[in-house]
Amino acid sequence: MSSLANSNKIMAPEYYDFGPYKIHHSSVFYTNDLCFAFVNLRPAVPGHVLICPKREVKRVADLTAEEITDLWMISQKVGRQLESYHKASSLTFCIQDGPQAGQSVPHVHIHILPRMSRDYENNDDIYEDINKKEKELKEKLEVDKERKDRSLEEMALEADEYRKFII
Amino acid sequence: MSSLANSNKIMAPEYYDFGPYKIHHSSVFYTNDLCFAFVNLRPAVPGHVLICPKREVKRVADLTAEEITDLWMISQKVGRQLESYHKASSLTFCIQDGPQAGQSVPHVHIHILPRMSRDYENNDDIYEDINKKEKELKEKLEVDKERKDRSLEEMALEADEYRKFII
Repeated sequence: MSSLANSNKIMAPEYYDFGPYKIHHSSVFYTNDLCFAFVNLRPAVPGHVLICPKREVKRVADLTAEEITDLWMISQKVGRQLESYHKASSLTFCIQDGPQAGQSVPHVHIHILPRMSRDYENNDDIYEDINKKEKELKEKLEVDKERKDRSLEEMALEADEYRKFII
Repeated sequence: MSSLANSNKIMAPEYYDFGPYKIHHSSVFYTNDLCFAFVNLRPAVPGHVLICPKREVKRVADLTAEEITDLWMISQKVGRQLESYHKASSLTFCIQDGPQAGQSVPHVHIHILPRMSRDYENNDDIYEDINKKEKELKEKLEVDKERKDRSLEEMALEADEYRKFII
């Protein structure tokens, strides 16, 4: 490992803020100055990831122009690469912006889900799963610091895979 | 009317391309060099609008950096203003990117939906409606040039309202 890589590793935070919750760095597969991307404790489909601004911003209206541009440029790249990696053929991009839209964690996040034929018998059932799993994610982050349902190790392995090809 | 406004009006296209279909200019409430925003033939909720790149781009991966930035900057502004206009409290942003994600019209479009408490008994049912109404929109654009189900006049009135405050 080069000294630069080593130094970067040392300087990376152990946890990233996701609203009032913490995401362990091993689940984070991409970061830059403004945003971070992480694998999901409760994915609705393989490759279901979340992209967040680093700044704790509740609503899309509160994002700066730089954050919007960065979030969506990264989402475009991550989506394209995840679709290829998971041999999918489409993508669902979704922001639940505010509690009445189903937002469970008050920190803007883009859901990206690789899609393929017959991944759901009814194509739209995936949204019910997004919401269900987002609520479960919130509950798990609240009550289960150990995340025993999907192990940190399993999530770290997935994030390691994505780090190899993202961007 | 100033001569400039008059000249702009004369130069505005009568129809905007939405994949293989045409959207009448009276339904379009915002345009700039790269994108256009229009009211929906089959809205799932009041204020359900679509934002498109002017260029006929099938997938998010094919958008240029300028198009991505522009589409989402406009979506942020339109969303905030529609939410206020419709006295809503949240927004759903969604892109069905590719046929396996439920995309019916092969031209990238962002759905924006103002949301409020109890607009749907089950919050997620809105996605089923988005898909159902997008399929209906496609069918109507294909077979019913007159759009008799929701009149051009009704849509033009809504677009007129939005033109007053958008951007």
